[in-house]
Amino acid sequence: MNARILNLMEEVRSGRCSPEEAADQISGLRLEEVAGFARLDLGRTIRCGVPEVVLAEGKDTTHLVGIMKRYVEVSGRCVASRATEEQAAAIQESVPDLTCEYYPDARIVILTNGTEKPSSGGIVGIITAGTSDIRVAEEARLIAEEMGCRTLTAYDVGAAGIHRLFPALNELRDADAFVVCAGREGTLPAVVAGLVGRPVIGVPVSVGYGYMGKGEAALASMLQSCAVLAVVNIDAGFTAGAFAAQIATGVQRE
Amino acid sequence: MNARILNLMEEVRSGRCSPEEAADQISGLRLEEVAGFARLDLGRTIRCGVPEVVLAEGKDTTHLVGIMKRYVEVSGRCVASRATEEQAAAIQESVPDLTCEYYPDARIVILTNGTEKPSSGGIVGIITAGTSDIRVAEEARLIAEEMGCRTLTAYDVGAAGIHRLFPALNELRDADAFVVCAGREGTLPAVVAGLVGRPVIGVPVSVGYGYMGKGEAALASMLQSCAVLAVVNIDAGFTAGAFAAQIATGVQRE
Amino acid sequence: MNARILNLMEEVRSGRCSPEEAADQISGLRLEEVAGFARLDLGRTIRCGVPEVVLAEGKDTTHLVGIMKRYVEVSGRCVASRATEEQAAAIQESVPDLTCEYYPDARIVILTNGTEKPSSGGIVGIITAGTSDIRVAEEARLIAEEMGCRTLTAYDVGAAGIHRLFPALNELRDADAFVVCAGREGTLPAVVAGLVGRPVIGVPVSVGYGYMGKGEAALASMLQSCAVLAVVNIDAGFTAGAFAAQIATGVQRE
Amino acid sequence: MNARILNLMEEVRSGRCSPEEAADQISGLRLEEVAGFARLDLGRTIRCGVPEVVLAEGKDTTHLVGIMKRYVEVSGRCVASRATEEQAAAIQESVPDLTCEYYPDARIVILTNGTEKPSSGGIVGIITAGTSDIRVAEEARLIAEEMGCRTLTAYDVGAAGIHRLFPALNELRDADAFVVCAGREGTLPAVVAGLVGRPVIGVPVSVGYGYMGKGEAALASMLQSCAVLAVVNIDAGFTAGAFAAQIATGVQRE
Amino acid sequence: MNARILNLMEEVRSGRCSPEEAADQISGLRLEEVAGFARLDLGRTIRCGVPEVVLAEGKDTTHLVGIMKRYVEVSGRCVASRATEEQAAAIQESVPDLTCEYYPDARIVILTNGTEKPSSGGIVGIITAGTSDIRVAEEARLIAEEMGCRTLTAYDVGAAGIHRLFPALNELRDADAFVVCAGREGTLPAVVAGLVGRPVIGVPVSVGYGYMGKGEAALASMLQSCAVLAVVNIDAGFTAGAFAAQIATGVQRE
Amino acid sequence: MNARILNLMEEVRSGRCSPEEAADQISGLRLEEVAGFARLDLGRTIRCGVPEVVLAEGKDTTHLVGIMKRYVEVSGRCVASRATEEQAAAIQESVPDLTCEYYPDARIVILTNGTEKPSSGGIVGIITAGTSDIRVAEEARLIAEEMGCRTLTAYDVGAAGIHRLFPALNELRDADAFVVCAGREGTLPAVVAGLVGRPVIGVPVSVGYGYMGKGEAALASMLQSCAVLAVVNIDAGFTAGAFAAQIATGVQRE
Amino acid sequence: MNARILNLMEEVRSGRCSPEEAADQISGLRLEEVAGFARLDLGRTIRCGVPEVVLAEGKDTTHLVGIMKRYVEVSGRCVASRATEEQAAAIQESVPDLTCEYYPDARIVILTNGTEKPSSGGIVGIITAGTSDIRVAEEARLIAEEMGCRTLTAYDVGAAGIHRLFPALNELRDADAFVVCAGREGTLPAVVAGLVGRPVIGVPVSVGYGYMGKGEAALASMLQSCAVLAVVNIDAGFTAGAFAAQIATGVQRE
Amino acid sequence: MNARILNLMEEVRSGRCSPEEAADQISGLRLEEVAGFARLDLGRTIRCGVPEVVLAEGKDTTHLVGIMKRYVEVSGRCVASRATEEQAAAIQESVPDLTCEYYPDARIVILTNGTEKPSSGGIVGIITAGTSDIRVAEEARLIAEEMGCRTLTAYDVGAAGIHRLFPALNELRDADAFVVCAGREGTLPAVVAGLVGRPVIGVPVSVGYGYMGKGEAALASMLQSCAVLAVVNIDAGFTAGAFAAQIATGVQRE
Repeated sequence: MNARILNLMEEVRSGRCSPEEAADQISGLRLEEVAGFARLDLGRTIRCGVPEVVLAEGKDTTHLVGIMKRYVEVSGRCVASRATEEQAAAIQESVPDLTCEYYPDARIVILTNGTEKPSSGGIVGIITAGTSDIRVAEEARLIAEEMGCRTLTAYDVGAAGIHRLFPALNELRDADAFVVCAGREGTLPAVVAGLVGRPVIGVPVSVGYGYMGKGEAALASMLQSCAVLAVVNIDAGFTAGAFAAQIATGVQRE
Repeated sequence: MNARILNLMEEVRSGRCSPEEAADQISGLRLEEVAGFARLDLGRTIRCGVPEVVLAEGKDTTHLVGIMKRYVEVSGRCVASRATEEQAAAIQESVPDLTCEYYPDARIVILTNGTEKPSSGGIVGIITAGTSDIRVAEEARLIAEEMGCRTLTAYDVGAAGIHRLFPALNELRDADAFVVCAGREGTLPAVVAGLVGRPVIGVPVSVGYGYMGKGEAALASMLQSCAVLAVVNIDAGFTAGAFAAQIATGVQRE
Repeated sequence: MNARILNLMEEVRSGRCSPEEAADQISGLRLEEVAGFARLDLGRTIRCGVPEVVLAEGKDTTHLVGIMKRYVEVSGRCVASRATEEQAAAIQESVPDLTCEYYPDARIVILTNGTEKPSSGGIVGIITAGTSDIRVAEEARLIAEEMGCRTLTAYDVGAAGIHRLFPALNELRDADAFVVCAGREGTLPAVVAGLVGRPVIGVPVSVGYGYMGKGEAALASMLQSCAVLAVVNIDAGFTAGAFAAQIATGVQRE
Repeated sequence: MNARILNLMEEVRSGRCSPEEAADQISGLRLEEVAGFARLDLGRTIRCGVPEVVLAEGKDTTHLVGIMKRYVEVSGRCVASRATEEQAAAIQESVPDLTCEYYPDARIVILTNGTEKPSSGGIVGIITAGTSDIRVAEEARLIAEEMGCRTLTAYDVGAAGIHRLFPALNELRDADAFVVCAGREGTLPAVVAGLVGRPVIGVPVSVGYGYMGKGEAALASMLQSCAVLAVVNIDAGFTAGAFAAQIATGVQRE
Repeated sequence: MNARILNLMEEVRSGRCSPEEAADQISGLRLEEVAGFARLDLGRTIRCGVPEVVLAEGKDTTHLVGIMKRYVEVSGRCVASRATEEQAAAIQESVPDLTCEYYPDARIVILTNGTEKPSSGGIVGIITAGTSDIRVAEEARLIAEEMGCRTLTAYDVGAAGIHRLFPALNELRDADAFVVCAGREGTLPAVVAGLVGRPVIGVPVSVGYGYMGKGEAALASMLQSCAVLAVVNIDAGFTAGAFAAQIATGVQRE
Repeated sequence: MNARILNLMEEVRSGRCSPEEAADQISGLRLEEVAGFARLDLGRTIRCGVPEVVLAEGKDTTHLVGIMKRYVEVSGRCVASRATEEQAAAIQESVPDLTCEYYPDARIVILTNGTEKPSSGGIVGIITAGTSDIRVAEEARLIAEEMGCRTLTAYDVGAAGIHRLFPALNELRDADAFVVCAGREGTLPAVVAGLVGRPVIGVPVSVGYGYMGKGEAALASMLQSCAVLAVVNIDAGFTAGAFAAQIATGVQRE
Repeated sequence: MNARILNLMEEVRSGRCSPEEAADQISGLRLEEVAGFARLDLGRTIRCGVPEVVLAEGKDTTHLVGIMKRYVEVSGRCVASRATEEQAAAIQESVPDLTCEYYPDARIVILTNGTEKPSSGGIVGIITAGTSDIRVAEEARLIAEEMGCRTLTAYDVGAAGIHRLFPALNELRDADAFVVCAGREGTLPAVVAGLVGRPVIGVPVSVGYGYMGKGEAALASMLQSCAVLAVVNIDAGFTAGAFAAQIATGVQRE
Repeated sequence: MNARILNLMEEVRSGRCSPEEAADQISGLRLEEVAGFARLDLGRTIRCGVPEVVLAEGKDTTHLVGIMKRYVEVSGRCVASRATEEQAAAIQESVPDLTCEYYPDARIVILTNGTEKPSSGGIVGIITAGTSDIRVAEEARLIAEEMGCRTLTAYDVGAAGIHRLFPALNELRDADAFVVCAGREGTLPAVVAGLVGRPVIGVPVSVGYGYMGKGEAALASMLQSCAVLAVVNIDAGFTAGAFAAQIATGVQRE
C-alpha cells in the first residue's frame, strides 16, 4: 500500500495529479483502509492459518453449496463440518468440476479445485479413549491436516486397555501437540498430559448416559483436572484440531 | 482530516516535502486512522449517549480514583456503581476539588467537575414491586438522569397492594419507556407491559429464597412471559436505566 | 364515555328517561366498565400496538383456525407463529375467502380479510450473525411490519465476516431500534450495541452444540454483557420484533 | 540395569550366589522396576517442564511448609498458589535460609534455595479485559516465568477501551502463545484469537453478578466461540500459564 | 378383631381349644396384623380416597391389562394415565366384558366392571391459562371425578384474555378447591390465589420454549410466588386433581 | 352503590344537580369503582383469610416498623417473618403501646393492638422429620394460628426414629390438613401422605450438604413422589401454614 | 414372645385369668407388636451394625448433649458428626462422668460410658488423593472403627505423586473394602477400583474451585466412571465408612 | 513367576544357559513385567472378578462382533450391554459356532464358546420399586450371575404396594448384598437399607417426568439419604450388579 501512496505522491509532485484529487484518493484509500481493517477477518486463513469451515448442519443444500463454492474460489479449498451423506452427495452433484471428499466418521466434506493442502511440518497426535470418540477425533485430524500438519493417531487406547496407551504414546512421541478425545468421565486427557511434555488439548465427547452424561462429566473433570490441560467444547473436534495445528505449526515455523 | 492531507499534498506539489516524506506521513496518519477507528469506543458517550460507568466493586481505592479522575477530565462526569460508603468517602477525600455525590441505596458515586448532566427531554418511568427492589431501581434512575432524562418513579407498588399500580401508572403516563424491577416470581414487569403502550424493560432483582431464588425465578418468568418485554441481567439497574434512556432520548430527538 | 353518560343525564333531566332506568343503565355501563377494565387485554392491539399472535405449535388445526378467524373478525389480521406448512395449508383451505400468507423461514402464517397493516413510520433494523439465525430474525421482521414499521435487514454479517458488519450498519443507519439475533456465544448484539446510538435487543438463537449450546451461552453472554443491551428469550423473534416496533413507533409518534 | 542382572548371572554361574538368592534379588529388582515405573510421576518437572505447584488454600502452615521444603530440596524451587499473606509470612519465618517471595495479586509464594528459574526462550503474552482479571493473569505470568518463559503483559485492555487492544497486541506480537483473562461475558479471548496467528488460551474469571455470573457465562461463551480457542477452568491462571509456557517452550526448542 | 380374640379366649377357657393351638392362632393373627399393617397401602383407596392410578407409559399391553384387571377386581374401577390410543384399544379388546373409556386429551383410560364412581359432594374448580394446558387439566378433572367430586372447568381464560377470568371465577365460585394449570411463566395460579378464598393448587405445564421452558419457569415462579399457593410437579394433573379432591371431600365430609 | 346512583338521578331529575355535575360524579364513582376493583387486593385478609405478612429480612427497622404499624391500624395484627432478634427489639421499642411477641425459632414477630386472633375451628397438624426443620414448622404453626386454626405438632419424628411417627399421627388424627417439613432427601411428607386421609403439604427444608443439598433434593423428591402431595418453596413455612389453614378453615366453615 | 402368649393361654385355661383380661392383654401385646414393628428402627445398631450418629451441625448444645446422653444410655456409645471444638468442649463439660473424645480433623465427637467398640474382624482401607480430603477420610475411619472394623489408611497418595499409590495399595492389600476420597476431578477412586479386587466406595470431596468445583465434578466423574465403583454424597465420610464396614463385617462374619 | 526365574537360575548354574542369555531372558521378562504391569488391565477378569462388558450402543455390528470375539477367545465369555435385538441377531449370525443369548429386557447379549460362568457362592438380592425399573435390574442380575453369584429377585415391590416388601425381603434374606432400583423420587433403596443388615446399592432409574425427572430426583434423594446407602449412575445396572457381586463374592471367599 505504501507503493500506491508513493506513486500518488509522485503524481502530485509531477503535477499529473492535483493535490485535491490526491487528497480525495487518499481519503478513498483510507476508507478502504478502514474497511480493510474490518475485512481482516476475511484473511483469517492467511493470518491465523485456520481454514474456513462451514457448519453444514441445518443448512439447506443450495445455501451450503453457494457458500462452499465462494470459499473454494477464494482459497482453493473449503471444509464443511457436520455434513450428512445426503449433503455430501448433493454438493458433489452441484459442482461436478470440483473435487468433493466425504468422511462419514467425521461427517466432514472437503471441496477443492485441486489446490493442495499446505504443509507446515507440524505433527499433531490424536488419541481417543474409546471407539465412540473416533468421530470427533477424525474431525480434529482432518482439520489439522487441512492446516498443513501431519497427524499420528492412536484410537481406542482406553477401551482396549490402558496397556495400549504406553506403546501408543511411544508411537506418537514426535507429536508437537496432542488432541485427546474422551467421553463419560473423560480422564484420559489428564493421564496423557501427565505423561508427555507437549501441550494436550482435551475434547469431551458426548458419550455416556445418566447424570452429567453426554460429555458433561468429561468436560467438568477436564476443567477440574490438576494436570496442565486445555479444553474445548463437547464434541468440538474442529476447534481442538485447529488449535493443535496452530501449536504444531508454530513449533515448526521457528 | 482532509484538510491535513490537502496541506500535505500542497507541500509535495510545492516541493517543500518529498513524496517519500509525505508517503511516510500519510502512513502515519493511516495508523492514527486505524487507531482512531479502534478508539471509537472512547467516544461511547458521544456516540451512544451512554456515560462511562466504573464498577467500584472489588477495585482498590487508588485504582478507582485514578480511573474516575481520568473520565472526569475527558467528559466532566463519571459514575461508579456498586461503591461502598468507604469508597465514596475515599474518593471525595482524594479529589477535594471535584464534587462527589454518594447515593447509598443505589451504591452509586457520581464525580463531577461541575459539568452539568445533559438534558434530552426524554422521560423514563421506574417502578418497583417491593421495597427491596428500590436499590436496583435507584441505580437505573441515576443512570437515566445522567443520560439526560427526567425520571418518574413509583416504588413498592406491589408490596403495598396492586391498587397502587393503577394510580402509579397514571402518574407515570408520560414516560417514554419503563423500567420495572421485581424479585421472587417477578411478574410485575409483564403486568405493566400489558397495560402501557410504551416499551417495558424488566429487571429481575436478587430477592427471594429457596428454589430459583435470588432473582432466578424472576429472570425465568420474565423471559418466558407472553407479554412484550425485554429483560436485563439480575440486579442490572445500570443497563436497564441506560437502555430506557436510549429509548426515551430517541423519542424526543425525532 | 363521558359523552354517553352526559347524554343519559340529559335524558333524565328532560324526563325522557326515568332515574331508575338511568341508574340501571349506568350500572350496566359500570359493569361494562369493570368488564371493560378486565377486557383491556382484548384491546391490546389498540392500546399497545401489539397484534394478536397465536402460537400454532401443538394446536390442532380446527382449534387454530377457529381462534384465527375470531381475531380476523375483530381486528382484520391475525398472525400465527411456529406454524408448520401443513397447518398453513389447512388454514388456507378452511377459510378460502381470507388471505393466508405462509412464511416458511419464520414459520409464520398471516391471515387477513384484506385489512392493511398499519403504518407507524418507525424503522426497525434486523441483523443476524449467521444463516441459522434468519428464521428467528424473519419472525421479528414480520411482527415489526405487522405493527406498522418498515424493516431493514442485514443477515449473516458474522458468518460472512465481520467486514460485512460496517457496511451493513451503514445501510441500517436510519433504524430507530435494532434486533440482533445470534446463537453459539452470541456476541454480535453487544458489538452492535457498542457501535450504534439506538437501542439494541439481543435475541439468543438455539444454535450451537455441547455445553450451554442451543442458545444458552448466547443468553448468558448477552445478559452478562457490559454493553447496554436488552434481551429476550431464546428464539423469541416475536417478542424482539414487537419490542423494537414499540420503540420505533414511539420515536415516530412524537 | 542389564549390567546389574548380568553381574548377578555371573555370580550364579560362578557359584558365588545361589539360584535362590539370585531369583530373590531379581524379584526385588523387578519390584523396583515396577515402583520405578510408577515413580515416573515424580519426574514431572523434568518430563513436562511443569513445576510443582502446591495449593496453599486450606492447608495448615506446618503442612504447607513441609511440602514446600521437600520440593525445594528436590528441585530448588517451589510455588504455592492461593496463599494468604499470613501463610507467606509463616513460610518465610519457618525457613529463614530459603528465599520466599510473595505476590499478593496472584496470591503466589515462590520459595527457592537460590536455584535460578530455567530459561526456555519462549514468550507468553498475557492479556486481561479488566482490572479485576489481573489477579488471575498474574498467577499465569508467574507460572510461565517459573517455566522459563519471558512474559509480555497488557492488562485492562477491555475496560480502558478496545482502542488499547490494537497497540497492545502490537506490543505483544512476539508472543508464542497468549493467555487472555476475562470475566462477565468473556468475549476478549475470542477477539484476540481472531486477530493473532498464535494459540490463545481463554481464562474465564469469576467476575460478574446475576445469571451465570462469577465466570460461568465467560466459560460458556468461550466454549461456544467460533474462534479457535482453548479454555481452562474459571480462575485457573496456573493451568493457563503452564499450558502457554509448554507451547512457547516447544516453539523455541525446535 | 377384639371379638375374634375374645372368642378364642372363650374356647381356651372352655377347653375347646388348647392353649398351644390358641397361641399358634394368635401368632397367626399377629402375623396377619403385621402383614396387615404393611398392607395398609393396599387400602389406599379406602384410607385416603385416592384411586389406584396405573402409569401406562412405557408398559407393554399385556402387563398393563393384567395390572388393571387386578385393580378392577379389587375396587371395581381402575385408571391408567399417559395411555396411548393404541393401549386403550388393546385394553378394550382384552377385557371385552369390562367398560373401557378413553379420554384422548387427558390420555386416561378408565376401566370398570360397572361399579359407579363414589360421590363426595365436593366441588373442584379447574382452570387453564391456555389451550395447551387442557390435557393436564383434563387429567386432574377425571381423577377428581373418580374421587367423587363434581368439577367445574374454565379453560383458556388467559389465552382468550384476562376478561374471561372474572366471569369464570364467578361461575366456579362454589368450588372447594382450585386446580390452575399454566405453562410458560405460569402466573395464573398466583392471580387466582389472590382472588379466591379457597386453596389453589398450581400445576406447571410443559409449555414454552427457550430458557427454563417446558414448564420450568412456571414451576419456579409458582414456588417463588408471594401468593398462598401449593404446587405439584410439571404436568402432574393426577396429583393436583387428587389433592384438590381430598380438600373438597374433606370440606363436605364435616 | 345503586342507591347512590339512584339518588344522583333523582337530584338530576329534580334539578338539584345539573347533568354535567352528575356525569362528573358518576365518572368519579367509576374511577372509585375501578380503583375499588384494584383495591380488592387490600382486602386479602377478609377475602382469603390470609393475614398480611411482612418480610423483615433486608428491611431497615424504620421502614419495617412503619409498614407494620400501618397494618396493625388496619387489621389489628401484623406478622413479620424472617426477623432478627434485633429487629424484634427495635420494633418493640418503637411502638411501646403495641404488643410485640418474638418467636426466635420461627424468626417471627407478631405485633398487635390487642385484637385477638380469629378462631376458625380448623385444625392443622404440623410434623417435622428432624430438629433442624422446627424453625420452618414454627413459622407454619404461627401463621396457621394467626388464621384462626388450632395446631397440633409432632416434631423430630424422623430423627428420633420412625417409631415416633405412628403415635404422633395418632395424636394428630383430628387435623384437617398436614404440614410436613423435611430436609435432605425429604421423604417424610410422602410417607405421611400415604398414611393419612387428609391433604398433606410438603415443605422442603434447607438442610443437607453436598449434591442437591440445602433442600433441593427434598424439593425434587417431593415433586416426583407417587404420593398425593402438594409442595411449597424450600423453607416456605409461611405459605404451607397459610395453605393448610385455608383447607382447615374451609372444612370447618361448611 | 410365643412363650409369653402360651403362658397367658395357660392362665386362661387354668382360670387364673379371664378371657376378657387375656384378650385385653393380647391386644396390648399386639399394639406393642405394631409399635415394635415400627420401633425396629430403634434397633438399627443391632440390626444393621450401624451406630447412631448425631449431626451436631446447627444443633444447640443442650439439645445435642441430651440426644447423645440418651444414646449412650441405650447403647453405651454415641457419635456426633460435624461438631465444632466448642460443642465438643461443652459436651465434655456437661457429662463429666462420660468419656468424650474429639477428633478435630473429622469434626467427630465420640461419647462413651466405657463400653468398648465392637470388633468385627473386618478391615477397611481408606485412601485420599490429597491432604484436603483427609477430614472426610477421618470421618469414614472413625465410623468404620465404631462399627468394629480395623482400618488401614493411605492419605495424600495422589498429591505426593501416583508413585505412592502402588506401595500404599500393597500396604492396604488386606482390606475387605476401600473408601477412596478425592476432590477436584475425583479420578482416584476409579484408578483404585481398576487395581484391587475388592469393592471401592468413592467419596467426592468439596475441594476445587470454578466450574463444577466443590466436589461436583468429582461426583460426576465417579458416577460416569467405567470402573466398578459405588458413590456416596459429597463429603459423606460417614456413609462411606459405614458402608465399607458393612461389607467388611459381612466378609468376616461368614 | 518366581518359579520361572528360579528355573532360569538353575540353568545358568548348570551351564545349560549362559549368563548373557539369562540376562536377556530376564530383561525380556522384565519388559513383559512392565508391559504386564500396564497389561494388568487386561487381567481385570482375574484380578477383580469383573467380566469384560462391551457397550453395544452406537457401535456398528462388525466392530462389535470383532471386539466380542476377541474377548471370547481370551476369557471364554463376553457380555455386551445396551444391545438392540438387531445387533444380537447380527452377532449370532456372524459367529454361528458361538452361543449367543439375548435378554431383551436387559438389552444384554452374552456370547460364549461354551465356557461356563464361574461360581462364587455369593448371593445378590435384586429389588425394583416398579415394573419400569426391571430392565435396569435385569442388567444387574445378568452381570452378577456372570460374576458367579446366585441372584434372588423381587420386582415391583413398590408399585404393587409396600406390603410386598416385607415378604420379599424375607425371601431375599440370604443375600450378601442388595441392588435396589427405583425411579421418580427413588426412596425404596433407603427403606431397604434401613431394614436389612447387608450393604444396599441404590440404582436411580430414568423414570419420571417433569422437574428432576428421568432419575435425577432419585439420584439426588439417594445421595442425600440418611440411610447407609451407596449409589451408582442413573440406569447403571451393570455397575450395581458387578459391585454387589464383588461384595457377595468376598463374603463367600473368606
